[in-house]
Amino acid sequence: MNLSGIISYPITPFTQDGKNIDFNALGLSLESLLEQGSDAIAPLGSTGESAYLSTKEWREVAEYTVKKVNKRVPVIVGISELTTEAAVENARFAQQVGADAVMVIPVSYWKLTELELFDYYQAISDAISIPIMAYNNPATSGIDMSPELLVKMFHQIPNVTMVKESTGDIQRMHKIKLLSEGKLPFFNGCNTLALEALCAGASGWCTAAPNLLGVAPKHLYEQVKAGELNKAQTLFYQQLPTLTFIVGVGIPKVVKAGLKLLGRDVGLARKPLGDITEQQQTQLKALIHQFVRGG
Amino acid sequence: MNLSGIISYPITPFTQDGKNIDFNALGLSLESLLEQGSDAIAPLGSTGESAYLSTKEWREVAEYTVKKVNKRVPVIVGISELTTEAAVENARFAQQVGADAVMVIPVSYWKLTELELFDYYQAISDAISIPIMAYNNPATSGIDMSPELLVKMFHQIPNVTMVKESTGDIQRMHKIKLLSEGKLPFFNGCNTLALEALCAGASGWCTAAPNLLGVAPKHLYEQVKAGELNKAQTLFYQQLPTLTFIVGVGIPKVVKAGLKLLGRDVGLARKPLGDITEQQQTQLKALIHQFVRGG
Amino acid sequence: MNLSGIISYPITPFTQDGKNIDFNALGLSLESLLEQGSDAIAPLGSTGESAYLSTKEWREVAEYTVKKVNKRVPVIVGISELTTEAAVENARFAQQVGADAVMVIPVSYWKLTELELFDYYQAISDAISIPIMAYNNPATSGIDMSPELLVKMFHQIPNVTMVKESTGDIQRMHKIKLLSEGKLPFFNGCNTLALEALCAGASGWCTAAPNLLGVAPKHLYEQVKAGELNKAQTLFYQQLPTLTFIVGVGIPKVVKAGLKLLGRDVGLARKPLGDITEQQQTQLKALIHQFVRGG
Amino acid sequence: MNLSGIISYPITPFTQDGKNIDFNALGLSLESLLEQGSDAIAPLGSTGESAYLSTKEWREVAEYTVKKVNKRVPVIVGISELTTEAAVENARFAQQVGADAVMVIPVSYWKLTELELFDYYQAISDAISIPIMAYNNPATSGIDMSPELLVKMFHQIPNVTMVKESTGDIQRMHKIKLLSEGKLPFFNGCNTLALEALCAGASGWCTAAPNLLGVAPKHLYEQVKAGELNKAQTLFYQQLPTLTFIVGVGIPKVVKAGLKLLGRDVGLARKPLGDITEQQQTQLKALIHQFVRGG
Repeated sequence: MNLSGIISYPITPFTQDGKNIDFNALGLSLESLLEQGSDAIAPLGSTGESAYLSTKEWREVAEYTVKKVNKRVPVIVGISELTTEAAVENARFAQQVGADAVMVIPVSYWKLTELELFDYYQAISDAISIPIMAYNNPATSGIDMSPELLVKMFHQIPNVTMVKESTGDIQRMHKIKLLSEGKLPFFNGCNTLALEALCAGASGWCTAAPNLLGVAPKHLYEQVKAGELNKAQTLFYQQLPTLTFIVGVGIPKVVKAGLKLLGRDVGLARKPLGDITEQQQTQLKALIHQFVRGG
Repeated sequence: MNLSGIISYPITPFTQDGKNIDFNALGLSLESLLEQGSDAIAPLGSTGESAYLSTKEWREVAEYTVKKVNKRVPVIVGISELTTEAAVENARFAQQVGADAVMVIPVSYWKLTELELFDYYQAISDAISIPIMAYNNPATSGIDMSPELLVKMFHQIPNVTMVKESTGDIQRMHKIKLLSEGKLPFFNGCNTLALEALCAGASGWCTAAPNLLGVAPKHLYEQVKAGELNKAQTLFYQQLPTLTFIVGVGIPKVVKAGLKLLGRDVGLARKPLGDITEQQQTQLKALIHQFVRGG
Repeated sequence: MNLSGIISYPITPFTQDGKNIDFNALGLSLESLLEQGSDAIAPLGSTGESAYLSTKEWREVAEYTVKKVNKRVPVIVGISELTTEAAVENARFAQQVGADAVMVIPVSYWKLTELELFDYYQAISDAISIPIMAYNNPATSGIDMSPELLVKMFHQIPNVTMVKESTGDIQRMHKIKLLSEGKLPFFNGCNTLALEALCAGASGWCTAAPNLLGVAPKHLYEQVKAGELNKAQTLFYQQLPTLTFIVGVGIPKVVKAGLKLLGRDVGLARKPLGDITEQQQTQLKALIHQFVRGG
Repeated sequence: MNLSGIISYPITPFTQDGKNIDFNALGLSLESLLEQGSDAIAPLGSTGESAYLSTKEWREVAEYTVKKVNKRVPVIVGISELTTEAAVENARFAQQVGADAVMVIPVSYWKLTELELFDYYQAISDAISIPIMAYNNPATSGIDMSPELLVKMFHQIPNVTMVKESTGDIQRMHKIKLLSEGKLPFFNGCNTLALEALCAGASGWCTAAPNLLGVAPKHLYEQVKAGELNKAQTLFYQQLPTLTFIVGVGIPKVVKAGLKLLGRDVGLARKPLGDITEQQQTQLKALIHQFVRGG
């Protein structure tokens, strides 16, 4: 698996009462992301409110997404479970329904030691035969995996073949690059670091931004690859205020609110997450206006 | 409800294969905590691995504990759920089986705004008629509730009547005291802050320590209440190395390992949590030795 | 030297043009602090704007203070110098003019290793024969000395016999107590931690508060020593809003503004420090009102 | 003044007893930096131990450097003073002896408000007619100036025309760029962020690295400007371990130790700064070996 470019994160749309998944809206979301040039689709990530779904819902979304994307691009299914057993079961299920890879974040109530984290990934790797993208995002998961641990798992656990780094600390990427002698592909998961991560050698950008910014993230990626730094800077600084807003206010609720502003009602994020405020809606409208025209 | 003193946190014992709850061992644990002079029992807290249990298991532990304690002291059932819906359902269940109060920590994958946190507690309060202890522990939950928010909820949400503060920052307790004009009872949830929290006016100490330290925590509480500061200091500094060890290595696994060292096998913590190392076992043995003799 | 209680920090008054020291006002300040029951006087600390004085000014204040206090209580002269050479020279001068001890904070532009910090204190100790209070306050000095280092210096450097801990982290005091087996006297330098530090065994409270709060800090100290915890709590929570204000806005400028409000004009803090705002003056007036009446 | 590229920071060499400045060695250092392609020279920065010099020494170094560089490239003199008065005096002196600009960092014992910082820069600007580079480096100065403040000073204080950002947080540069609409030139002062800062639009890189790495930093700058990202990455990752070492161990002592390894004895850093350890010398030797050959 040789992944690069824009890995897009669909939201999980709910019906108006918030109780059921709106698969029709999910299908439209997936088609839209593919039209924007996504190089891979990653359902059930942070954006997809993975952690707030029941096991049954999670499985339905995984299965539906794989079928809908239908091999047009790779599908990387997100797993964020508290217990090893649940993570292993979900990983098995993802492989069974045809996922190309899983992206695993070790959510935890209690902090985990490096040994416990290693065993967690080892147990998942033992249960499947598709690649694992180790996903580090302490701001949401409460667990911080060092570059040293990530590279160690890459060397010692067969299916751990990629990393998604979301701390926003570029020095982590530097360390991964040096420690693995450039062999461990790393992806950027911090939207406001996109330009620099790509310049530092990230293989791609994992992002929910294409939901609202259309082809703009893909264009940024392409200009960096072409060495057109001035154009890349222009594109990045155009997107930055919107990226900052999305991240600052909260990805799922902003993306859902933004899609509604764009005429596509996908329901609200699941409680305790609420809706964005009216003032934030006004700000968001102004921010995404330019991208709609250009998109 | 006029709660004070030592609120003890039982572990949730598992069978050797880790798959089932060992209710016999749970019963022994509860009896032991009552014998040590616990002023209340709080099952399904952080110590009880609440977050790692299935809904069915969680309910069985809640029901079993209430029955076993049988009104000898109040039972405060811990709730740590990602979605509002699950928290409300568990709170209703706790009340239904006879819990005296619930202790609620707003675990979350995404950060929550103050409004979202308020609504979360409001929804739970609306569903029950027993007191709620709002539990702030950002190190495990990823969410930090300010003293301002806690006091606001105390004033505006009927059943929010107590706070458990576990940040370890004594200034939070100062603020709660000043902002509520001394009316909001706060409990200390940071073991290594026990002496100072009690001296600053905490109503009690929420702790798993009695599982391993027997009556020592209760004695500390009593000496502070008696104004015997020198004796309280002596007791606190005796317990401090053990408290530091328990917190530093991780409460459920250390308490379980300690109970095994004391001759009571309660299984391991649930994966991804592992066992403590052999070196840690040696340290723990030395630490708890003195309290066993004294207990 | 067996120091305990309230160690008071005088400001360094300037003339109206800010260029010269107003020794008359300094004398009045010292007398006032002695009247409030200070157990020691510490000129040229953070409060005394030590870092903003020329070498000549610093020496004049040291000499003047020792003479004025005239052995009524111990005088502990503060030293905050960037280079070892300047610190050694000032320490020698302080001893020569009759200081009872020096309080040394290793201000530095570059971070220092533990070895460099040790050598710094060693060099000062070698140059004098009076006690050194090692002063840790990373918020102002940029250098954080661990409890381990402080206890090591206490054991290995002859004149290092006391510690002033100003991080506000009570766990530092716990560690100093345990590591030194209760033998290293530690003083609290964080005003808003006064109650708890004293309850945890601090020998005293190093504070500028008596400048504005009169005998109130001394009363708090006495009630803790008497085991009158309820009274101590009442006194502490009465003083806490004012202590929080003083620390939050900045000690020298608040103390100087407060003294002016009390009818004693001691000039402004030296630039770049400015005056407090009008709004802050109104707040400060309300805060210190109660203590003036009582004082 | 249209500054860009590599702004090199000379050390301040001392004689073997550490008491005097070795101007001969300083001259050789300056010539060497000019030979490596430096686009500007910045004496008396952090690297130059500015904070540890007497006023007399500081002035001699400023004057000597301007004369020695003799208009071959701009000279930007560093000012790091605690009081406004001393900063103003040094700025005046720098202009008088022919400096092209001053770089000002508001070192302080007490934290400063935004108003106090603004007034500090305003007072310096009022005293001179050459450009001021506002230098933000909270790790050494203890004061953190927000992008909002920096841009405000750029708009409102005539001589503040450039910023050196050394927090290592690329988001600060993003904000400066957006808030000033690209008009405020910013320079990177965090060595391990050099690649990304230049890619994000930094006008140049302020660095002591050319002292040990020769032309390598200049080459990195040139490749980024040419849009040769792959080459720039290769150059950056080659330099990164050495940059990390220099910053981690401490710039002045590592640069001085490195120069000695290269055959140029410039004395030690001034106490309390010590020498690097033998183990560090071995590491440093290995690190700089490759650049010596290439340089």
